[in-house]
Amino acid sequence: MGRALKFSAVASVFDSCADRFVQTGYSRKKSFKELLEAAKKVPDLTGVELVGGWHLKDGNAREVIKMVENYGLKVAIILPELWSSAKWGRGSFTSNDEKIRREAIDQVKRSMDLAKEINCNLVNLWFGQDGYDYCFQADYIKAWDRIIDGLIECADYLPDVKIAIEYKIKEPRTHCYVGTVGKVALLTYQVNRLNVGVTLDVGHALEAYENMAESVALLKRFGDKLFHLHLNDNYRLWDDDMIPSAVHLIEFLELLYWLDRIEYNGWYSVDIFPYREDGTKAVIESIEWIKGLFRVLDKMNKDEIERIIQKGDATESSEILRKGLFSL
Amino acid sequence: MGRALKFSAVASVFDSCADRFVQTGYSRKKSFKELLEAAKKVPDLTGVELVGGWHLKDGNAREVIKMVENYGLKVAIILPELWSSAKWGRGSFTSNDEKIRREAIDQVKRSMDLAKEINCNLVNLWFGQDGYDYCFQADYIKAWDRIIDGLIECADYLPDVKIAIEYKIKEPRTHCYVGTVGKVALLTYQVNRLNVGVTLDVGHALEAYENMAESVALLKRFGDKLFHLHLNDNYRLWDDDMIPSAVHLIEFLELLYWLDRIEYNGWYSVDIFPYREDGTKAVIESIEWIKGLFRVLDKMNKDEIERIIQKGDATESSEILRKGLFSL
Amino acid sequence: MGRALKFSAVASVFDSCADRFVQTGYSRKKSFKELLEAAKKVPDLTGVELVGGWHLKDGNAREVIKMVENYGLKVAIILPELWSSAKWGRGSFTSNDEKIRREAIDQVKRSMDLAKEINCNLVNLWFGQDGYDYCFQADYIKAWDRIIDGLIECADYLPDVKIAIEYKIKEPRTHCYVGTVGKVALLTYQVNRLNVGVTLDVGHALEAYENMAESVALLKRFGDKLFHLHLNDNYRLWDDDMIPSAVHLIEFLELLYWLDRIEYNGWYSVDIFPYREDGTKAVIESIEWIKGLFRVLDKMNKDEIERIIQKGDATESSEILRKGLFSL
Amino acid sequence: MGRALKFSAVASVFDSCADRFVQTGYSRKKSFKELLEAAKKVPDLTGVELVGGWHLKDGNAREVIKMVENYGLKVAIILPELWSSAKWGRGSFTSNDEKIRREAIDQVKRSMDLAKEINCNLVNLWFGQDGYDYCFQADYIKAWDRIIDGLIECADYLPDVKIAIEYKIKEPRTHCYVGTVGKVALLTYQVNRLNVGVTLDVGHALEAYENMAESVALLKRFGDKLFHLHLNDNYRLWDDDMIPSAVHLIEFLELLYWLDRIEYNGWYSVDIFPYREDGTKAVIESIEWIKGLFRVLDKMNKDEIERIIQKGDATESSEILRKGLFSL
Repeated sequence: MGRALKFSAVASVFDSCADRFVQTGYSRKKSFKELLEAAKKVPDLTGVELVGGWHLKDGNAREVIKMVENYGLKVAIILPELWSSAKWGRGSFTSNDEKIRREAIDQVKRSMDLAKEINCNLVNLWFGQDGYDYCFQADYIKAWDRIIDGLIECADYLPDVKIAIEYKIKEPRTHCYVGTVGKVALLTYQVNRLNVGVTLDVGHALEAYENMAESVALLKRFGDKLFHLHLNDNYRLWDDDMIPSAVHLIEFLELLYWLDRIEYNGWYSVDIFPYREDGTKAVIESIEWIKGLFRVLDKMNKDEIERIIQKGDATESSEILRKGLFSL
Repeated sequence: MGRALKFSAVASVFDSCADRFVQTGYSRKKSFKELLEAAKKVPDLTGVELVGGWHLKDGNAREVIKMVENYGLKVAIILPELWSSAKWGRGSFTSNDEKIRREAIDQVKRSMDLAKEINCNLVNLWFGQDGYDYCFQADYIKAWDRIIDGLIECADYLPDVKIAIEYKIKEPRTHCYVGTVGKVALLTYQVNRLNVGVTLDVGHALEAYENMAESVALLKRFGDKLFHLHLNDNYRLWDDDMIPSAVHLIEFLELLYWLDRIEYNGWYSVDIFPYREDGTKAVIESIEWIKGLFRVLDKMNKDEIERIIQKGDATESSEILRKGLFSL
Repeated sequence: MGRALKFSAVASVFDSCADRFVQTGYSRKKSFKELLEAAKKVPDLTGVELVGGWHLKDGNAREVIKMVENYGLKVAIILPELWSSAKWGRGSFTSNDEKIRREAIDQVKRSMDLAKEINCNLVNLWFGQDGYDYCFQADYIKAWDRIIDGLIECADYLPDVKIAIEYKIKEPRTHCYVGTVGKVALLTYQVNRLNVGVTLDVGHALEAYENMAESVALLKRFGDKLFHLHLNDNYRLWDDDMIPSAVHLIEFLELLYWLDRIEYNGWYSVDIFPYREDGTKAVIESIEWIKGLFRVLDKMNKDEIERIIQKGDATESSEILRKGLFSL
Repeated sequence: MGRALKFSAVASVFDSCADRFVQTGYSRKKSFKELLEAAKKVPDLTGVELVGGWHLKDGNAREVIKMVENYGLKVAIILPELWSSAKWGRGSFTSNDEKIRREAIDQVKRSMDLAKEINCNLVNLWFGQDGYDYCFQADYIKAWDRIIDGLIECADYLPDVKIAIEYKIKEPRTHCYVGTVGKVALLTYQVNRLNVGVTLDVGHALEAYENMAESVALLKRFGDKLFHLHLNDNYRLWDDDMIPSAVHLIEFLELLYWLDRIEYNGWYSVDIFPYREDGTKAVIESIEWIKGLFRVLDKMNKDEIERIIQKGDATESSEILRKGLFSL
C-alpha cells in the first residue's frame, strides 16, 4: 500500500511546559541543543518542527539546519510564530492595526523563505490569536476578508512553498475564526491556491466534536487538502495535548485506517504538552501507540472492513474491531 | 432600517412533545385544527411551518392551505419529512439503500411542488438521520457525494423554489454529516445553485460551540446564504430547544444586531420543544423576548456599537451592552 | 481474586428504541416473551432487569418470574417506573403535587415488595424527571428535602431490600437533582441507611466529566456504596447509550481494574439503546468487550500496575497499558 | 433584607495575564503597589484577595497590610499558594512525596497565621494541582484520605480561622479531585469542622454543568457552608474567567436571588483573567453588572417570584424575568 510512516515532533515538546498558573514552567527550560539531544533519543523520530521567529531567524537558518542534521533529523515543517508574543494578542492577520497585520504577513513570508532555503517547503499557519472572546467585539466579515486576502498574498509570494493551515475552535481566544474542518475547507476553497492546504491537529478536531477520520475524509473530498498531521489526544472539551490514543483509541484506529485509505504520505508529527512528564518518554509513547495501532490494522482484513463500512452495521464494526484488537 | 420582523412557528411546537423516555408524550396529542387554534392565540404570529408528508400530503394541499389561511396564517416554509420514520433510520440522501435514497429525494421534490403550488417557495431540508454513530460505520466521502448529488438534483428540479439546509452537529445520530456552519457553507459552495441556502437553527449553532452572530456573518460572507431562521436556546451541550434567550441573552442580542446588519428579511421562526409547558404560552414568551431584545437594540447608538466592534475592546462592549440593557 | 463476573441486561435493550423524532420506534415493538427470547440468545447473560410498573405489576409477579426462569434467567434488579409516564413530567419524589409524590413513593415500595417476593432484593431508583429545565423554576432546598425524606421512608419500609440510586446529570430534564457521583454520595451519607446505595451508570459518569474508575473508588471510600453497575458508552456530552468500550476503551480498562480492586461482586448489566442495531447482537458485543478487556487485565502484572499508580508517572501508565493491550 | 454587598477582587486581576502560549504575559507585569493603585481606581471595591506566599510572606505581613489599608482596602481572604510553583505539579496535599505534602499543609497553616494576624480570618484553599491527567495514574482513595486528613489538621490548627475550599473540575489537571459542588459538600461533611466551608467560584460551577443558584442552595442545605464567592463567567466548557454576566446573565440573576434568599453576607469577589483588557476597567464592569442585576431583582415582586418557584411553570418564570429585565 506504500504507507510512508515518518515521525516528527514539535521541538518544544521536549522543553518545559508552562500554563497560566505555573508560568515559569513545570521543569527547567532547555537550550535548543538540549531539545535536539532529547529528540535524538526517540528511536523512530526523523523530523522536527521548528518555530520561525524562535528557533529559526533571519541569518541563522544555515547554522540551525546544520545542527538539526547533525542530530540525524530533518525539519518537517516551519511554524511562523503568530501566537506567543503580546503584540499578536488581538490578532495577527485579523488585527485591527494595519501595522500588526503587515508584520504578521511578513512573518509568514519570512518562514516561507526559510522553508524554501532549507528545502522543507512546508509552513504551518495557526491563527491562534485571530478570534474574539466577547460578544460585540468583532467584525466577523472583515476578519474573514483579512484572513483570505492575507493568505492569498502569502500563497502567491512563493507558490512552491506549501502553507498548511491549522484550525482550532478555541484557545487562546474563546472563539477562533478558523475553528473547524468545515471552516478551514471553506477557506481553502475560497483562497483557491494549490499551495494552500490544511494541518489536521487531531486534538483540535476532537475538541470541535469532530470524528478525526471524517475530517481526514472531508479534506480529501474537498480538494485533497490534508498537507500535515499533528498527533495528540484530549478529553474532548479542551486541547489537553496528551499522548495520542491515551483516550480515544478506537477513533485513532479509524483515523489511521482513513489516512491509509486516502494514501496520506506526509508526516506523523507529535504535538503534545507533557507538562509533568519527560518529553522524550512521552514522544516515544506517542509513536509506539501509533505503531501498535497500525500493527492491529495490518492484521485486519481490509476487504472485510470495507464491506462493513459500506453496509454500516455498528455491531459488525464492533465485532471486527474487537477481534482485531484482542487478536481473536 | 427596514427590519421585516415576521414571526412564525413550527406547527408541532403546539403539540404534545415526546422524548425517548415518555414516548407517548407529555400531554395529549392534538389534531391539526387544534394546532392552528393554538397558533392563532399567539398575537404576533403570522406564519406556520408545516411538515411535508405529515400535515401536507399529495392531494390535501389546497384544503390545508385554506385552513391555515382561515386562521389568518401563512405557510412560512415546508419541511419535507426525512427524519421521523423508521425507514430513514440509517439515512435519507446518504442511505446505503438506493431505493431509500430515491424516496428521500422524491420526498423533497414533492415538498418543493407543494411549496410552489401554495406560493411559499421555500423548503427546509434537515438531514437529521444522515450521519453515523460508531467508528468504522460510514464511508464519509461517498456520503458527501450523495448529499451533493441529491441536492443538485433537487435544486435543478424547481429552480424558483428555495431549499434551506438546516445543519446540526448531532442527534438523532451521534454525528450528523451536515453539522456546522462551516460544513453547510462549504456544501452550498460546492452545490453552487442560487436556490440552495441555509436555515440557521440558532440552537444548533450554540450546540456546535458557534457564536450565532458569527454564523450569520459567515453565511452572508460566503454567498449571502441565510434563507431561514429557527429560534430556540439550550445549555450548549444538547439541543434542549428552550425558549430563545432563556440562557444566552447577550449572544441573542448580538445575533439580532447582525441580522439587522446583514439586512435579513426572512422569518423569525420559533422552533422549540415545550415538553412540560403550554405551547401557546411558550411561543408567546419566545416572541416577546425577541421583541424585547430588539427594543433594547433600538435604544442603543448604532454608530457607537459599530465603532466598538471595529476597535474590539471587550470592556467597551461590556459597557455599552450593560447600559443598553439596564437603561443607564 | 474471586471476581464474580455475572452479566445482565435491561429487558428493554432487546426492544425497539424510540427517540423524540422517531416516536414510534426504529423497529417493531416486541412482546415480553420476545424480549426474553432475544435475551436467551446472549450466551453469557444470566440476569435481566425488569421495570416495576411495566413488566412487573401487582399480581403478575409469580407468573413473570416463572417466565424469566424458564428462559434460564434471573431478575437482576427491579426498576420502579418513575420516568416514562406524563404524570411524572414535573417530578416524582420532588413533585410540587403531594399526590404525585405519594404515588411515586408507593411505586418504589411496590417494587421493593416485588423484589422481596422474588428474592432479588435489589431496586434501582432513577430520578430522571426530578430536576428542572429553566432558571427560577425550582426550590432546590425543598427538592432535596423531599428526595431525602422519601428515600428514608422507602429505606425503612423494607430494610432488607437494597435501593440503588442511579445518578444522572441531565435528560430528560436539562438539570437533574441527583446528577453526579458527589451528589449521590452526599445523598447516601445524609440518608444514612445501610440499604441505600448507588447504581453507577458509567455513561452517566462520563457525561458528567467523571472518570469512571474514580467514581467507583469514591463510592468505595464513602461508605462502600456501589450496589449496581450499568454499562454503556457515549461521546461525553450526552447519554448516547452505546456499546461499552466503543469510545472509551482505555477508561473502561481502568474501570474494570478498580472494580476488581474494590472487590465489586454485583452485576455487570448492559444498559444501552441500540436504536439502529439488533439488540441481541449489541448485547453480545457489549459483553464480549468487557470479557476481552478483563482478559487484557488478567495478562498484566498487578503489582506493577499498583506500583505505577502509587508513583503517578503517566508515561509509565501509558507503557504498561500499551504493552498489555498489544500483547508486547 | 440586609443584603451586605461588599466587593473585592483577587489582586492579580489587575496584573498582566499569561497563558501557555504567551508565557511572558499579554501586558507589562506590575509591582504590588501598582496593583493596589489599579484596585483603588475601582469605585466600589473595598476588599482585595492576596496570595499567601506571593504578596504575603513571613515577616512582611504588617507592612503589606499597611499598604493595603493606605489604599482604603481590606484583605478579603488569603489564598495560600499551592498551584503556581513547579514543586506542586504532581499535587500538594495529595502528592506522593511526603515532604511536599508536609510543605503544602505548612503553607496553609502559615496563611492561617497571617489571616489571624491581620484579622481577616479567612483562607481560600484551591487544590488545583491535586488531581490526575491520565488513566492508571492515581490512587483515588488514598488521595481523598490525604485531602481529608490534611484538611482536618489545618482546621484544628486554628479553629477560629475559616477555610473555604474552592472546587474546580479541571485545569491545571485534566481531572481535579475536589471538582464539583457535590464532592466539596461531601468533603466538608466528612471533615466535619465548623471552620471548613466552601468558596463558590461560579465559573467553576458553570464549567461543571452546575446551575450556580442550585449550588448555592445545596451548600446552604448541607451545613450552611458557603463561606466565599468568586465571580466570573465562561462559555461552559472551560474556565474562561470572563466578566461576570457576559454570557450567563439569566443564570446570574437567579444566582443573586438565591444569595439573598440564603442571606449570604460574605464578599462578592471578582476573580477574572482580563488577558487582553485593562484590569481596572474589567473589574469596574464586573461590579457594575452585579449591581445592575441586583437593581433588576429589587424591582421585581419577591412574593410573586417565590410563588412561581413553588409552582415550577417555566413560562411564568420566563415572563416575570422578561418583564423585570425589560422594565415592562
